[in-house]
Amino acid sequence: MLRIGIINVTGYMGAEAARILHAHPEVEVVSVTGRSAAGQPLGEVFPHLAPLGLTVEAELTADIDAIVSALPHAASAETLAPYAERGVPIVDLSADFRLRKLEDYERWYGAHPAPHLLANAVFGLPELRRKEIESAKLVAGPGCHSTAGILPLAPAVQHGLIEPDVIVDSKSGISGAGRTLGLKYHFAEANESVAAYALDGHRHLPEIVQELGALSEAPVPKVTFVPHLIPMSRGILVTAYATLRRGTTTEQVRELYASFYESSPFVRVTDAPPSTKQTLGTNNCLLYPTIDEDNSRLIVISALDNLMKGGAGQGVQALNIMFGLPEDAGLRGLALYP
Amino acid sequence: MLRIGIINVTGYMGAEAARILHAHPEVEVVSVTGRSAAGQPLGEVFPHLAPLGLTVEAELTADIDAIVSALPHAASAETLAPYAERGVPIVDLSADFRLRKLEDYERWYGAHPAPHLLANAVFGLPELRRKEIESAKLVAGPGCHSTAGILPLAPAVQHGLIEPDVIVDSKSGISGAGRTLGLKYHFAEANESVAAYALDGHRHLPEIVQELGALSEAPVPKVTFVPHLIPMSRGILVTAYATLRRGTTTEQVRELYASFYESSPFVRVTDAPPSTKQTLGTNNCLLYPTIDEDNSRLIVISALDNLMKGGAGQGVQALNIMFGLPEDAGLRGLALYP
Amino acid sequence: MLRIGIINVTGYMGAEAARILHAHPEVEVVSVTGRSAAGQPLGEVFPHLAPLGLTVEAELTADIDAIVSALPHAASAETLAPYAERGVPIVDLSADFRLRKLEDYERWYGAHPAPHLLANAVFGLPELRRKEIESAKLVAGPGCHSTAGILPLAPAVQHGLIEPDVIVDSKSGISGAGRTLGLKYHFAEANESVAAYALDGHRHLPEIVQELGALSEAPVPKVTFVPHLIPMSRGILVTAYATLRRGTTTEQVRELYASFYESSPFVRVTDAPPSTKQTLGTNNCLLYPTIDEDNSRLIVISALDNLMKGGAGQGVQALNIMFGLPEDAGLRGLALYP
Amino acid sequence: MLRIGIINVTGYMGAEAARILHAHPEVEVVSVTGRSAAGQPLGEVFPHLAPLGLTVEAELTADIDAIVSALPHAASAETLAPYAERGVPIVDLSADFRLRKLEDYERWYGAHPAPHLLANAVFGLPELRRKEIESAKLVAGPGCHSTAGILPLAPAVQHGLIEPDVIVDSKSGISGAGRTLGLKYHFAEANESVAAYALDGHRHLPEIVQELGALSEAPVPKVTFVPHLIPMSRGILVTAYATLRRGTTTEQVRELYASFYESSPFVRVTDAPPSTKQTLGTNNCLLYPTIDEDNSRLIVISALDNLMKGGAGQGVQALNIMFGLPEDAGLRGLALYP
Repeated sequence: MLRIGIINVTGYMGAEAARILHAHPEVEVVSVTGRSAAGQPLGEVFPHLAPLGLTVEAELTADIDAIVSALPHAASAETLAPYAERGVPIVDLSADFRLRKLEDYERWYGAHPAPHLLANAVFGLPELRRKEIESAKLVAGPGCHSTAGILPLAPAVQHGLIEPDVIVDSKSGISGAGRTLGLKYHFAEANESVAAYALDGHRHLPEIVQELGALSEAPVPKVTFVPHLIPMSRGILVTAYATLRRGTTTEQVRELYASFYESSPFVRVTDAPPSTKQTLGTNNCLLYPTIDEDNSRLIVISALDNLMKGGAGQGVQALNIMFGLPEDAGLRGLALYP
Repeated sequence: MLRIGIINVTGYMGAEAARILHAHPEVEVVSVTGRSAAGQPLGEVFPHLAPLGLTVEAELTADIDAIVSALPHAASAETLAPYAERGVPIVDLSADFRLRKLEDYERWYGAHPAPHLLANAVFGLPELRRKEIESAKLVAGPGCHSTAGILPLAPAVQHGLIEPDVIVDSKSGISGAGRTLGLKYHFAEANESVAAYALDGHRHLPEIVQELGALSEAPVPKVTFVPHLIPMSRGILVTAYATLRRGTTTEQVRELYASFYESSPFVRVTDAPPSTKQTLGTNNCLLYPTIDEDNSRLIVISALDNLMKGGAGQGVQALNIMFGLPEDAGLRGLALYP
Repeated sequence: MLRIGIINVTGYMGAEAARILHAHPEVEVVSVTGRSAAGQPLGEVFPHLAPLGLTVEAELTADIDAIVSALPHAASAETLAPYAERGVPIVDLSADFRLRKLEDYERWYGAHPAPHLLANAVFGLPELRRKEIESAKLVAGPGCHSTAGILPLAPAVQHGLIEPDVIVDSKSGISGAGRTLGLKYHFAEANESVAAYALDGHRHLPEIVQELGALSEAPVPKVTFVPHLIPMSRGILVTAYATLRRGTTTEQVRELYASFYESSPFVRVTDAPPSTKQTLGTNNCLLYPTIDEDNSRLIVISALDNLMKGGAGQGVQALNIMFGLPEDAGLRGLALYP
Repeated sequence: MLRIGIINVTGYMGAEAARILHAHPEVEVVSVTGRSAAGQPLGEVFPHLAPLGLTVEAELTADIDAIVSALPHAASAETLAPYAERGVPIVDLSADFRLRKLEDYERWYGAHPAPHLLANAVFGLPELRRKEIESAKLVAGPGCHSTAGILPLAPAVQHGLIEPDVIVDSKSGISGAGRTLGLKYHFAEANESVAAYALDGHRHLPEIVQELGALSEAPVPKVTFVPHLIPMSRGILVTAYATLRRGTTTEQVRELYASFYESSPFVRVTDAPPSTKQTLGTNNCLLYPTIDEDNSRLIVISALDNLMKGGAGQGVQALNIMFGLPEDAGLRGLALYP
């Protein structure tokens, strides 16, 4: 049994990691931290996590084989640095180790607390970087919008099917904003309403650009990304739009996508437009590519659970790969439907 | 007092027309029809409409000055034809008289029951066709997605600001699908979920193309339109994307939009991205234009209530114009918030 | 035109008062206050209130004929005292002047800032105290749960139909908790969930006891009151249970209720169990009394909009009565449905 | 591995049984039926069940060790009779074998298709009837409201703590109504609304009376039961009210409840009022007993997931007991939160 410590279990992402790992057959959660709640039984902070039988600690105390960190950016790198320097295997769900170039990080987040660790970090999207993750010690779990935006475009970009100029329109449930309070997330304000946000630029954009850019020799793709807040707790649906470079059929595109993700257990090309509910509580990303023939445009829908494939689930998937476990260990549950 | 008859009051659009007109200072609803519920008190079908004190009839019986029809397409043209031939002023909320070219109608809807009436019908979007509506006898209320898609793009198209190649990503509440039952609209299926639909082409697309096309000499714009079902009862948010033709600033675009809609009481250019909740129960369309400078792209958000500005409210607005009443008579209520 | 000032327009109750009064034909809102937002345009705090064209002030500045206060308890009495002493007509939506007995107030709220005003205050439930309101200068708008709990029981209590031992099970939308942030009201926590709260005693209980007690010579009724938080923005549904004292039929009870509320324009006895949606945005309270014959129990359902009949709407109703206006002036709009 | 057949997998209850059993370590689902969808891949009817790799059949075809039936009442008894006669172990989630007395069944449901099987059927509430279930061949899964209504009252009834006169106020998510279409379950109607239903008597009432009655020698308890429809997909919260017979403290009641359910892995007495979200996707029933001291009343809150502990999950729990498996096999997952 792998002994895992979860840093910052008191947010939604950390709690979701605890929920998954509790059911993981090869893993034991042995220590969980959370600054504000240190000393409290975990079951008081999150009643559904009471069965773990743990107390929230100020710092990881137990002997551990690996760390999952769900701290906010900057705090995460700062806290993880000593562990990373000692070579403890880490899955960091924050943004701190996602961007290869320090200047990208600095533009979007400010000063980096541990830039010397960037070189060895791997962007933890297994569908694109499985090999690198296998031998990585520091994996950066991708952002939720990034996962939902990269997966529907990667096959088309790699195969040069589309112009390097795409639109990612993302619709996200409100847990994506975390557990922090805010008027926009107050039930009475968010319910029965939809709105776009971060129109001046969202921090997941550079991840999407970086990863799509890495798939082709072509110029860095231009990506317009607009996230929207949807009145639901979980789920992200991305509608991605791109101009086709050459004639192709929907059938050919579907085959290309199916083949691209052939060995990826969590990505499925669906026969009908997917709904986010079909992914609730699972680590799946459902993809539906189609062509707007009148306008020679590729449209791809992707659906996932933002806390699972868009966060903690994908982190566990990476952890499995790092430790040579089956990629889907602990992640085989079906969607809670309806 | 104008004496109004509402045809097919038993769907959401007809009921909304009744609700608005009941509060209209210059109007009296004197007869309402609905095939399945004929003979039933209106207050049994819709308890909130009990104060109208009417009984649902099989056909309009009272002496009327004008008609609002909320029948489905084809049935509407068929039922309205005799009235239109007699010159009774009509606001038709169906699709039957929206498309100028018969072949467009036939492609999307099939045979037209009254093609001879098309020539005199006016597309009832007052912000673009106020003058024509003033003298019209047959006004076709635009589709909800069309209204939400045309208004955010019209100023940019007319001023040649953008390439004639746009994306309209629409997020709609479920009342947009009407009161007809369907698994997709079952609460347990639709709740906590979002999905795209009509990816093979939605019937509001030709309206958007027709109206944007009429604004410029340029080639007919290419429009990719994808609607999505959102877990809320009312509201549409459109995110429209287009490539800028020349350098411009967000400030200039905002001024252009404000000036374009200067004399339109229901369209407001907002200082922050609007939410649909801000329009709940009102006839307003809120617009937020902005520029993605890295990619020279115009992004415009529009928010409205699909049953009001996206349907019955806009129909009443047109009716006001047809009869020389203040454009906002009966439509001055503020949003129900939260 | 009555010139009205609204104190604390920046919460949901104050904003709702502003929304209603803006559409009121005999009223003009001339000054609005809000401590934290003083100096801000009202339309920045609440975009839907922009048409009022007012700026939030620290204190009422304009010359006013009456005040609607939506401050929290204690703050309200403190702020209103000087106005009340000058005889300015006041509708106070806080709890400060609802309880006749000072010791009741002190038990549930602590020290009262202006106990000398209690004697002249009237509990502002027009259906029970219309006459007193007519000549009152200081009216205390009842709590939302109280309104929803008293109206379904008043006729039965007054007619001695039931044992003085009742259960009030209340289901409330989340706007009832106000605009203040809290984990329980975070969308992701409140959505797809229902829970009871205030099981140690809710502050609306003594109002219910006081008002039901005033209806009969019998011993003070025992009231068990449990509120629940429901994942919706607006609306309260109360299910009230009481043991019948003597044999009676549902038909007789319905007649009793209809007759009791005969001259109350906002209370309707319905033919079928009402839903809160039927009251959305209206000042109506829908009542459905029925009998569980196997157990000789009276069950009464009441449905209302917590911000309207449960708050600001009822306050405006009282204001109308105080000034001799039609009781339903400004309150005639139909429900927003669906 | 137990080979299980699921009858009528095409409703929510059958689908939930399939979801649970797919993850059950000792079970294999080998055949699933559904009349309307016979011949269709299961993954077409319910995309989330595609991983089972089964086709919906008209009748169970594979060799099976046990059956879970999710047919509606009457149809279930009719279909199960031949299997029951052959002694195939059955968990029936319908109402057909819940009521001991044929006349009770006939009063609430009409003619019984297989009354000869009633004598051997066991009411499948393990917390009360674990021993009987161990040796049963035909187990009747309790109704969702019944489970949520019996568990919070059983300890108090058995210990004679309360008068035999109780109120069960139940708030249920909409999946409880099944997948059948109906205007009440249309999203736009059910959303942002709450209503009581079945005020003339709900079919789960006789189950509650039967099971509470079996716990004491006292006269059959009088139960007033009112269900409400809440705008959420899953979850039931019951608030149960009863008059205390003698003085007792909340602490004593809590101890009594904890001790009563000591050996029941799925029932937990909580320290704070539970929310249904804390049970989402789990087989848990959370209980919070408290006392309204002013009125000598016991109040108990119970929360569960209506498709799990209120249906298919409890059915699997019974199946485990019938086959001598750990009671919680396949049912150990934590709640999906938020």
